[in-house]
Amino acid sequence: MLAFSVTAVDGDARRGRLDTPHGVVDTPAFMPVGTQGTVKALRQSDLEMVGASIVLANTYHLFLRPGDESIARHGGLHRYIGWPRPILTDSGGFQVFSLAGRCVVTDEGASFQSHIDGTRHLFTPERAMDIQARLGSDIAMVLDECPAFPATRDAAAAAMRRSAAWAARCRKRRLALDAGEVEGVTPSNPGQAQFGIVQGGVFDDLRHESVEATVSVGFDGYAIGGLSVGEPPEDMRRVAAETARRLPVERPRYLMGVGTPDDLVEGVRAGIDLFDCVLPTRNARNGQLFTSQGRLNIRNARFADDPRPLDPACRCEVCRRHSRAYLRHLFLAGEMTAATLNTLHNLTFYLDTMRRIREAIAFRSFEAFRQGFARSAAVLPPDA
Amino acid sequence: MLAFSVTAVDGDARRGRLDTPHGVVDTPAFMPVGTQGTVKALRQSDLEMVGASIVLANTYHLFLRPGDESIARHGGLHRYIGWPRPILTDSGGFQVFSLAGRCVVTDEGASFQSHIDGTRHLFTPERAMDIQARLGSDIAMVLDECPAFPATRDAAAAAMRRSAAWAARCRKRRLALDAGEVEGVTPSNPGQAQFGIVQGGVFDDLRHESVEATVSVGFDGYAIGGLSVGEPPEDMRRVAAETARRLPVERPRYLMGVGTPDDLVEGVRAGIDLFDCVLPTRNARNGQLFTSQGRLNIRNARFADDPRPLDPACRCEVCRRHSRAYLRHLFLAGEMTAATLNTLHNLTFYLDTMRRIREAIAFRSFEAFRQGFARSAAVLPPDA
Repeated sequence: MLAFSVTAVDGDARRGRLDTPHGVVDTPAFMPVGTQGTVKALRQSDLEMVGASIVLANTYHLFLRPGDESIARHGGLHRYIGWPRPILTDSGGFQVFSLAGRCVVTDEGASFQSHIDGTRHLFTPERAMDIQARLGSDIAMVLDECPAFPATRDAAAAAMRRSAAWAARCRKRRLALDAGEVEGVTPSNPGQAQFGIVQGGVFDDLRHESVEATVSVGFDGYAIGGLSVGEPPEDMRRVAAETARRLPVERPRYLMGVGTPDDLVEGVRAGIDLFDCVLPTRNARNGQLFTSQGRLNIRNARFADDPRPLDPACRCEVCRRHSRAYLRHLFLAGEMTAATLNTLHNLTFYLDTMRRIREAIAFRSFEAFRQGFARSAAVLPPDA
Repeated sequence: MLAFSVTAVDGDARRGRLDTPHGVVDTPAFMPVGTQGTVKALRQSDLEMVGASIVLANTYHLFLRPGDESIARHGGLHRYIGWPRPILTDSGGFQVFSLAGRCVVTDEGASFQSHIDGTRHLFTPERAMDIQARLGSDIAMVLDECPAFPATRDAAAAAMRRSAAWAARCRKRRLALDAGEVEGVTPSNPGQAQFGIVQGGVFDDLRHESVEATVSVGFDGYAIGGLSVGEPPEDMRRVAAETARRLPVERPRYLMGVGTPDDLVEGVRAGIDLFDCVLPTRNARNGQLFTSQGRLNIRNARFADDPRPLDPACRCEVCRRHSRAYLRHLFLAGEMTAATLNTLHNLTFYLDTMRRIREAIAFRSFEAFRQGFARSAAVLPPDA
């Protein structure tokens, strides 16, 4: 069982410590997304520099290219990508439903066409666990069905119940893998943990039912899935908070695919321990930057001669070294370096926010932090 | 006058020390190309890490975007791009002739259309100096006319003679700028040096005439231009060597736009002190990597499961951390990080080669180094 201890609580917010085979993750933590085995525009030494303690990698992408068997031959994903710290892999389900072609779901699993070369594949709960065992991430996620938003209540219920059945099969497979009973699969990371995923859309009673079913299977941790897929922000926050409070207090809680800096603060307030989102990295590549005074778009003409750093309160390499004018120039000139610098800054802002959150919880000052955070980010209008 | 001292000689090869307003450059030196104010796919801290002591920036590009006046308002190019070490700027001539649209050359100067927005501009010798004075590079280059290869003897002679006349005008403008006599132009870097450029194509007597004309004007250093534009490699090396030996021994010699690792070694053998070339950076972005055992193309299928570093003899971050298999994966997956890692490695190889060259000259063992270098690079066939 993955070791997790809560070291401080402040309201529903908690500070904790997750002990994985590749090191400790202080929680609440944000996981940068490294889809294909790299966080886009960065290298692993950059992630260490900005203080990432864990990254997320996408099973769907790595299965298709370079392939889980190739990665296993290199000793697993950590060695393959040259990243010695913890890694969480998703199950691939979300990409199968959102990115792959011609997806067909049955109780057996989800069949789909590769978005790269059109080849046809089948992900079953068992296969999703086998692939992640070969990848050797520190935390593997169960395969779940993610209905598109808006889903009818019936569709959300059906997907949730199928996900619950798949969760039980995933757990069974995990135990078989641990026992060395799955022929042809040698786990790259024997200490791999496994998280279940709660589904149920925006329907509180379905979420409640999903919590009961998932927790009754028994996992190392629990994720809240199927949010941040288009529902109104207030629905997302309500469902996340209502679900989090029903999850076991002694196990880590992971809010998948969320979100804005404010979402992170509100998630922590509701008792969430782990987050991932492409927002800081994708927005960086589009010139959208997060600062202690709100968002800014570096393409804006008013930055053409602006000698100030992106964020005077930020200590990252970019803010110590470069002006808004230079960053705007690099972006407009189409230089890849713009993506790198912007990503470094945005991830620094996210990870620094998480560090401040952890400190605030330790000092029992989380509510004061939360109110101050909301105020300071309102200085600039969004997307100024 | 730019301070330059030759600290060791070995045959025609020389080790030297160039003292610029932004620090010392140990020569022979290779200048990575930072066209738009950044070396593509890298940031300035990367250049410091790989040991670049000077970079080249392109006047044509920076004039068009963000504009020399904008850069001057920020205190010059060093401050604008956040690079405290020496910078050399070209005159913009080469890009006007090769990249801009509808170029018309008269004795007055070269008029052209921006490749970005089609606006029409005129570069005169005077304007090229004014722009570089605003940029505030440590070394400015005179405006020259670069005929396309192959050029007839008459065309090469005409371009060479026009370049000589322009060189005299450039020198006059430089002295006027130094004296504060050019209205509307405040030099960003009062200690800026100025190099003349020898032209003459592949015609030895024209090169000879160009040397005489350029040296008689009197510059801080002398460049050999108009090579590596399509002529056979043996012509390039012959002209470079024949020209270098006619240039003043007490002034730095710069072979423009050259070249392969072997070209650098042969250039140093002929008495060249400075080089620049897009080869290590552009090839990196195309997956072509330089190693101590020759070139390799990282896309090659034989690297798919290769756990070895690019170059076992290399100490760069990429070779210490990553396998050929991972680098191939990143390249095929279209990750920008591939360009960054490949560029880091190639530049490390180039700058490490220059460091070894300098050491060999100091130890009077350059010829042994040269022969060993040619042998080791022949282990792998080119582009294996």
